[in-house]
Amino acid sequence: MIPYEHKIQYYETDQMKIVHHSNYIRWFEEARCAVLDAVGCGYDTVEVRGIVSPVLGVTAEYKSMSRFGETVVIDVSVSMYNGFRFNIAYTVRDKENGEVRCIGETQHCFLNTDGRIVNLRKNAPDIHEKMLTLLPVEEHQQ
Amino acid sequence: MIPYEHKIQYYETDQMKIVHHSNYIRWFEEARCAVLDAVGCGYDTVEVRGIVSPVLGVTAEYKSMSRFGETVVIDVSVSMYNGFRFNIAYTVRDKENGEVRCIGETQHCFLNTDGRIVNLRKNAPDIHEKMLTLLPVEEHQQ
Amino acid sequence: MIPYEHKIQYYETDQMKIVHHSNYIRWFEEARCAVLDAVGCGYDTVEVRGIVSPVLGVTAEYKSMSRFGETVVIDVSVSMYNGFRFNIAYTVRDKENGEVRCIGETQHCFLNTDGRIVNLRKNAPDIHEKMLTLLPVEEHQQ
Amino acid sequence: MIPYEHKIQYYETDQMKIVHHSNYIRWFEEARCAVLDAVGCGYDTVEVRGIVSPVLGVTAEYKSMSRFGETVVIDVSVSMYNGFRFNIAYTVRDKENGEVRCIGETQHCFLNTDGRIVNLRKNAPDIHEKMLTLLPVEEHQQ
Repeated sequence: MIPYEHKIQYYETDQMKIVHHSNYIRWFEEARCAVLDAVGCGYDTVEVRGIVSPVLGVTAEYKSMSRFGETVVIDVSVSMYNGFRFNIAYTVRDKENGEVRCIGETQHCFLNTDGRIVNLRKNAPDIHEKMLTLLPVEEHQQ
Repeated sequence: MIPYEHKIQYYETDQMKIVHHSNYIRWFEEARCAVLDAVGCGYDTVEVRGIVSPVLGVTAEYKSMSRFGETVVIDVSVSMYNGFRFNIAYTVRDKENGEVRCIGETQHCFLNTDGRIVNLRKNAPDIHEKMLTLLPVEEHQQ
Repeated sequence: MIPYEHKIQYYETDQMKIVHHSNYIRWFEEARCAVLDAVGCGYDTVEVRGIVSPVLGVTAEYKSMSRFGETVVIDVSVSMYNGFRFNIAYTVRDKENGEVRCIGETQHCFLNTDGRIVNLRKNAPDIHEKMLTLLPVEEHQQ
Repeated sequence: MIPYEHKIQYYETDQMKIVHHSNYIRWFEEARCAVLDAVGCGYDTVEVRGIVSPVLGVTAEYKSMSRFGETVVIDVSVSMYNGFRFNIAYTVRDKENGEVRCIGETQHCFLNTDGRIVNLRKNAPDIHEKMLTLLPVEEHQQ
């Protein structure tokens, strides 16, 4: 999977002269959208079908500090997908020296416009097939 | 008109150890919403009627720097209103010493859900009457 | 402990017409700063002494959706403190109906300006005493 | 001059399903930093010399609406530079159809760490020379 890059902006810093920790949560979203888009499951594609995938939870562990001018590289992997829920794991590294800045995970589900859980396997099998391609090979084959 | 207060948050600072300039634009919106809400023209009230009031333009002059822990007081005044457009002027001052931090203005219009200009005088006379109360007395009486 | 209130701003919404999930992480910080400040351990007080308390980790579980115009009330409690590390737990509720919007926790440590762990018990006993007042009574007495 | 590109993120949208207007002010900064960096006058380079360039003012006129998934292209030009002050003009266009989204300008000065105006011509002639390269050719030659 192609890693996602984010160039750190001045407005993302705080008075500790480091990136404010809330921005990593936004970078997770940037990277997630890019990866889902790359396999044809982008927000746009899915929202057009009346399906949204809200964030149910997020965790982040900050390992080292990012600073203005640096670029981070974000590895994204789908750690779980079962048709109506999925989890995504992130590792944020400094582009230059590879140092881990942050690791995290987000949990999601699929909802229709009435706010009810949608099972893609039944309701959007074409998107379901694309989601499966994001799983590690061993799980995909099961 | 009651001045609007905003307590400055840590996440609003940048690495210059001052409030990042983009936040004043957001504070203008906070103060504008509070004032419009106070006279019964809040976003909610108006959006329910299928009317939105996008920002057409903004200007800000930064006079001095705000820092974490300070509170700012924002004076809001409607500098123009003609039924389908309005301008709002802002003065942001430090609460403690009254020093001016920033002055600015935003320009707005009223649009319906099709994106066409709406004249409140005709299409929402009750909201129009409330908007008039925001004008300085001399203009209101004209 | 006095609960912290936050009025939801327009700029905090996203195109799902709900508050973007990253803002809760910022609200945690708002509430944390207010509580630490109330007992005399505010960022300003501590940073003047050359001590910072970066965020080491954050978790959030989103239980229901917040919308523009609503006010949330945030309960803050120190779930752990041992002199050089502390954890803070948050419960975000809608002010009007009490519905839980989000629960979360942040992990912190104390560092000096060289980035080394500081034990408040030794290096800032007056601040240590104040931190202890934030612990539940049973732990405080131990 | 190479135009700056910004891919619009989900967290930049608001409940009107468009990009919140405050983000354009942040994109101005992104584009400004990239251009200054490209000629060797980046924030890092200049801040190391004890010189900062705060924003004195900003104007923005919103011409059309940006949406999630779109990419904008930002043209940046230095409209004035005299050694201690400079103005930068921005045109934000949709990448695909070229439609103008926003035009704006920011005003800046150079300050030393004491907050006093710095004239680069005298105090940092090498950076002054680089700033001159950003001016339109006719002015540069004068």
